[in-house]
Amino acid sequence: MSGRFGTVAIVGVGLLGGSLGLALKQRGLATAVRGIGHRATTLEAALAAGTVDTVHLDALEGVEGANVIVLCTPAARVMTLMDTLGPVVPRDVVVTDVASTKAAICAHAEATWPKPLRFVGSHPMAGSEKFGPEHADPALYEGRYTILTPTPHADADAVAVVRALWESVGSRVVPLDPAHHDSQVARTSHIPHIVAACLAELAAANEAVPAVVGTGFRDMTRVAEGRAEIWSEICLTNREAIRDGLDELGTALERVRRLIDESHHAELEAFFESAQQARREALGP
Amino acid sequence: MSGRFGTVAIVGVGLLGGSLGLALKQRGLATAVRGIGHRATTLEAALAAGTVDTVHLDALEGVEGANVIVLCTPAARVMTLMDTLGPVVPRDVVVTDVASTKAAICAHAEATWPKPLRFVGSHPMAGSEKFGPEHADPALYEGRYTILTPTPHADADAVAVVRALWESVGSRVVPLDPAHHDSQVARTSHIPHIVAACLAELAAANEAVPAVVGTGFRDMTRVAEGRAEIWSEICLTNREAIRDGLDELGTALERVRRLIDESHHAELEAFFESAQQARREALGP
Repeated sequence: MSGRFGTVAIVGVGLLGGSLGLALKQRGLATAVRGIGHRATTLEAALAAGTVDTVHLDALEGVEGANVIVLCTPAARVMTLMDTLGPVVPRDVVVTDVASTKAAICAHAEATWPKPLRFVGSHPMAGSEKFGPEHADPALYEGRYTILTPTPHADADAVAVVRALWESVGSRVVPLDPAHHDSQVARTSHIPHIVAACLAELAAANEAVPAVVGTGFRDMTRVAEGRAEIWSEICLTNREAIRDGLDELGTALERVRRLIDESHHAELEAFFESAQQARREALGP
Repeated sequence: MSGRFGTVAIVGVGLLGGSLGLALKQRGLATAVRGIGHRATTLEAALAAGTVDTVHLDALEGVEGANVIVLCTPAARVMTLMDTLGPVVPRDVVVTDVASTKAAICAHAEATWPKPLRFVGSHPMAGSEKFGPEHADPALYEGRYTILTPTPHADADAVAVVRALWESVGSRVVPLDPAHHDSQVARTSHIPHIVAACLAELAAANEAVPAVVGTGFRDMTRVAEGRAEIWSEICLTNREAIRDGLDELGTALERVRRLIDESHHAELEAFFESAQQARREALGP
């Protein structure tokens, strides 16, 4: 299966793109890995870290002749890249991305690309608060889930190639409808992130004494170290689901507040107990 | 300094009490460590784990002749124990507790105990989602902060003894006003805990697919595994500060929601950036 994916072009060679390149190269899964980016310094770092074979500032030049294109940029840039690539990429090329929101991107593909669709959205659940090619890790995807979000007009062969790509670097692939994916990650990732950022601000606004800041706070707010630019875009491309989830969170907080106001000791205890059960269910076996 | 604290009576031999007993015994800091509890099975487990020398179901019997009494029970029970012990404990005995809320307990001591006050509140920042004497760890307090909350009528010698007690098991002691302590922990611990529980419920209510539940969610909700009974009591004994903090959180979430609604990309990015800065400040050097 040497070089089975042929030439793979990775647009955006940060943590996710760089780790994919490194994994493909180390496992001999591509005949060539090209790195495309808009900052020369990042491209140089990607080359230095051995994540790609060649680097290109021009996207069209970088993807020319590629068999698989992986867009590893923030969500809005994925959509402009799709506009650029749609008209010029040959029909046999398979394209995917790694953005954390999928409905807007997949709807854009369905609306603007030829059918059957050779674009299939991916979301590898392999985030980290680290970023940049220097943190690229060939084992980043091992044992992690990757959500695949094929749309009604997705080409079955393209879906199979994208699935194989993630499985070949050690990931477990789970298909989900794009809207369902977005609704889920709003509750399990985006809103937790927003809350973590708000909690950090709350602590600072109250001039938190470092001595009272425990490991719980450290763990709860760790995700707030993620890249601000990416998170701003996630919020704006998953607006409706986040809004709904914030409503649900507001209702839940209001209920706890009422239980506290009215001194409902037993109900509060039952709430904390049911939350534990809920957490275990959410984390799965 | 062998046996320097004399006979130490620990009321409540769970994780915190058991770990203190074990640390005192292993370091030879007490001539005897007595364990007091209301469940025979817990007391037997405490004995089996070597956390105490003797066990007592009767509090008055257990504290008789003790030089230092440490109340390691939930906050409400600390106050009933103070009512029981206040009239009978000799004036030279030093009493402290380890509850996570301090204003109500310290006000109760100021209001009901003789002056100068031989009760000095403590809050070791050494929580864990584990509990029970079987998890007792003699190193639990090492390198962790313990907040001391002496009140205006606190006896200087009692303050010195309680400080020495925590320092002797490896803790770094920081004094804080009880109300300031409660206001701080509301923002850095209690509200984060409530939010973690709400996030867990949100995920379950939306039938979260385990594949989309990442390490961020796992870390953010880990504190929700704490003991429901304790957390119910924390909420009720720190009601005002939690209410104020929930208001602040509501305002912060409302602001993010507005930025999302109105597509303020740059302001959202600035918000996430300032939250990172806030987190680093809160965590301290």
